Amino acid sequence: MANQLLKGKKGLIFGALNEQSIAWKVAEKAVEEGAEIVLTNTAVSMRMGAIQRLAEKCGTIVVPADATNVEELENLFDKTMEHFGGGFDFMLHSIGMSPNVRKGFAYDNLNYDFLNKTLDISAVSFHKAMQVARRKDAINEWGSIVALTYMAAQRTVCDYNDMADAKALLESIARSFGYVYGREKRVRVNTVSQSPTLTTAGSGVAGLTDLLEYAEKFAPLGNGTAEECASYIVTLFSDYTRKITMQNLYHDGGFSSMGMSHEVMATYIKGLEK
Amino acid sequence: MANQLLKGKKGLIFGALNEQSIAWKVAEKAVEEGAEIVLTNTAVSMRMGAIQRLAEKCGTIVVPADATNVEELENLFDKTMEHFGGGFDFMLHSIGMSPNVRKGFAYDNLNYDFLNKTLDISAVSFHKAMQVARRKDAINEWGSIVALTYMAAQRTVCDYNDMADAKALLESIARSFGYVYGREKRVRVNTVSQSPTLTTAGSGVAGLTDLLEYAEKFAPLGNGTAEECASYIVTLFSDYTRKITMQNLYHDGGFSSMGMSHEVMATYIKGLEK
Amino acid sequence: MANQLLKGKKGLIFGALNEQSIAWKVAEKAVEEGAEIVLTNTAVSMRMGAIQRLAEKCGTIVVPADATNVEELENLFDKTMEHFGGGFDFMLHSIGMSPNVRKGFAYDNLNYDFLNKTLDISAVSFHKAMQVARRKDAINEWGSIVALTYMAAQRTVCDYNDMADAKALLESIARSFGYVYGREKRVRVNTVSQSPTLTTAGSGVAGLTDLLEYAEKFAPLGNGTAEECASYIVTLFSDYTRKITMQNLYHDGGFSSMGMSHEVMATYIKGLEK
Amino acid sequence: MANQLLKGKKGLIFGALNEQSIAWKVAEKAVEEGAEIVLTNTAVSMRMGAIQRLAEKCGTIVVPADATNVEELENLFDKTMEHFGGGFDFMLHSIGMSPNVRKGFAYDNLNYDFLNKTLDISAVSFHKAMQVARRKDAINEWGSIVALTYMAAQRTVCDYNDMADAKALLESIARSFGYVYGREKRVRVNTVSQSPTLTTAGSGVAGLTDLLEYAEKFAPLGNGTAEECASYIVTLFSDYTRKITMQNLYHDGGFSSMGMSHEVMATYIKGLEK
Repeated sequence: MANQLLKGKKGLIFGALNEQSIAWKVAEKAVEEGAEIVLTNTAVSMRMGAIQRLAEKCGTIVVPADATNVEELENLFDKTMEHFGGGFDFMLHSIGMSPNVRKGFAYDNLNYDFLNKTLDISAVSFHKAMQVARRKDAINEWGSIVALTYMAAQRTVCDYNDMADAKALLESIARSFGYVYGREKRVRVNTVSQSPTLTTAGSGVAGLTDLLEYAEKFAPLGNGTAEECASYIVTLFSDYTRKITMQNLYHDGGFSSMGMSHEVMATYIKGLEK
Repeated sequence: MANQLLKGKKGLIFGALNEQSIAWKVAEKAVEEGAEIVLTNTAVSMRMGAIQRLAEKCGTIVVPADATNVEELENLFDKTMEHFGGGFDFMLHSIGMSPNVRKGFAYDNLNYDFLNKTLDISAVSFHKAMQVARRKDAINEWGSIVALTYMAAQRTVCDYNDMADAKALLESIARSFGYVYGREKRVRVNTVSQSPTLTTAGSGVAGLTDLLEYAEKFAPLGNGTAEECASYIVTLFSDYTRKITMQNLYHDGGFSSMGMSHEVMATYIKGLEK
Repeated sequence: MANQLLKGKKGLIFGALNEQSIAWKVAEKAVEEGAEIVLTNTAVSMRMGAIQRLAEKCGTIVVPADATNVEELENLFDKTMEHFGGGFDFMLHSIGMSPNVRKGFAYDNLNYDFLNKTLDISAVSFHKAMQVARRKDAINEWGSIVALTYMAAQRTVCDYNDMADAKALLESIARSFGYVYGREKRVRVNTVSQSPTLTTAGSGVAGLTDLLEYAEKFAPLGNGTAEECASYIVTLFSDYTRKITMQNLYHDGGFSSMGMSHEVMATYIKGLEK
Repeated sequence: MANQLLKGKKGLIFGALNEQSIAWKVAEKAVEEGAEIVLTNTAVSMRMGAIQRLAEKCGTIVVPADATNVEELENLFDKTMEHFGGGFDFMLHSIGMSPNVRKGFAYDNLNYDFLNKTLDISAVSFHKAMQVARRKDAINEWGSIVALTYMAAQRTVCDYNDMADAKALLESIARSFGYVYGREKRVRVNTVSQSPTLTTAGSGVAGLTDLLEYAEKFAPLGNGTAEECASYIVTLFSDYTRKITMQNLYHDGGFSSMGMSHEVMATYIKGLEK
């Protein structure tokens, strides 16, 4: 499946770390669909090397930037526009990290410096990227911005911890900035709420394997994979979805609209009997 | 707990069948809180006799009415207003029945005459009751109307069948009529989305016991009981909640805002291992 | 923009009446994107003739069917499968009509026979079409079904009348059937909640022109047009969105996520001053 | 209306500044309903003096605390428990402030130090208060915690700026902590989403008067007043609502469930003609 959906379009992709990353799949898929891209990630993650391979594969560059640092973002947008010879058309934000999760601080025992970092890295960075983009007029009219999120922003998932709050903040930023950017430049901003996925970021969440298994049985179509998510995001970057904005869009096999499935209940009953 | 929350108020209660009924608990609680009430149910259910005991306990009458029949509703409102000597202040709709569920027709094998009945009994009857009330100017200014519903209206619960669609319709009717009735007479209309409950109506749903058990572990506070639901509904009838309208209010121990609980996951994992 | 997004796919489209119809635009767009289609509408609307022109343009047939009549639907699916030589991949439901709106019955003065018709035509017909499809195994694995809806299903719009309730019922049917069809055949079912649109159906709603004007200023990107809606629906029929199901998707320029816009407020203030 | 709804209950109230404050009205109402309370606000706001009058009226003390400072919160909870001779039953969080709004930084020109403060003061402070409460086991079983919020958390309201994002974060914190606190201590946590209100905090928002006027005409019951909001919150602190948790509850006269009202449209049309 490759239909030149993004022919002639250019985009900036945050957050590709390795082949498991959803951002990685989006980069590959976008190029496959005819787009030119620029990749970015932190200097630390660049030293891990994988993203350079992706850049080669995609025939592009990687510009290092800490997405919480406005100056580095300004440099990133300058370099990206230089690379493209002007503005571009789409942007993916796929960044999330909680020091509280990493260090094992439970939700009723949060370290507030860590919480501040969780929010800054996972949510405020999205505002920063858009504010810098807006100032530099980096995104072309009818451009499209997507950030990745997770359903825990609406419904509490045990062990997802302060990432749930960060995702709620991220989704609100999408709406708030979507109004401003839409009104003034016709740029749309949406979040995609993806099934639990075994990425490097996701694997930090305790019990992710169990959650994946449960979600697979709860969602009528099973979990969305990273590849499928990338295909979906490509439609949101394309001109087929120009009037979709300020939405939180579930790519989750139907999980979010389920209250109870036969499959989950059958397993649960077995568990009770044990 | 009894604080004369409904002192001086009068109300009409649909749907008390026996002591398990939420409507039964609401009737008792409303009287305990100082209200006068009138009870109604179908002629058939009246012959089962229990509701007469409730009427005696509450010092009131039962007026038989088929809530799908406008003429019978007209008679009901006339009799109720006669009993009260004028208008009244609150109304509870607690009516639901699906012939498809009863007769074992699965959701992809619905009998459409039965579906029509499910919708008429469980949802359109609510519109009919309000339309008749409105015409007869039966409900006093700042009156309060509540209908009982269930979360399957938003999220599919296996085996809840066409009742899910009926509840979605019911909730929409609450909003739509709430606008008209609010604007013109300051009457508010809300739905209460209650935990699964072992009532006579509920027990028709296949696997309700398992669902109850699951919900008890999924909701941080456990399921809301019929008594607790009645207490909550009393606040919605009182003057403490005058500006709450057109809302669907979850009384479910937090179930609706949960994505995954430790307790459910632990049991689920046991089931997987089995 | 035409990328063969639906190359090799086949679909059935309900509800194209004339060039203003969203279904008409979807038919044109689907064919443009490589799909084969079959058209259907009521015998009455077929006599108006326009749909025959569309069929010619799309190189296909029109099969008359009253979507509220199961036998006619059975004939429709038989004929469609005969035409395609087997199952097909997508289906559009774009059917809505309220006799209460047409005859001027206000929401607190509904005619209940008419309400019954509103629900049957605008919502239950969707269930009927899917149930017949399911029985005949008409839709291929990973097929996609879309029905058109409107935001009044969630938020009351004055004068939208009982169509709001019908749309709420329709959206619930999409979720409920989406579970069954997804679990068993990987078929997804979604609703698209479109901006107010000047179609023949829409123009029955009192004050639609004013609402369009308001929505244009409220939504950051302005209203979605019928053409844009068709482009969006094509992505939902394509293989790019395989794990999207049981969702209600707003194609509305951001209207649904707005609380207040500068533009609307400015006009409103002028109105106050007058 | 005073029914000893909170007889024997004790509570801590954040955020009463002057007679316009919702927290002020809640304090008065809670005492009227039989509760004992402790008041708290920042040292700065205490120097403005009004809160001392409220304390005298309510027969209680004011404990100064900066709600963003964990040590000051620890002192606050110690002093409050000392005053009550042990744990207490309810807590109100009514705190919000945006330096970006105050200093006139638009949403696409945010100062990020200010954003950090907006989030810390208006949302993270709620987590801090609950985390300290939890550690000190300050809240009795079946206790109730409420925070005040606003609909801009779901739908963008021009000029509400970064407060919208702070409120979204606040509401997420309520859900996330509600799970932990509910599971372990039966303590419930909800947010009340109140109509726009002319408080000192609210008056910082540009165009609030116009928004109030619009909302008054959009909501079928008109805006909820601060007094009405206080009455509602009292029910949430009472034992009548024990199974309501992790909910965002609109106290807004129906605004949140409206898409368009006749009254607003009539004025809007006048504005168009002008």
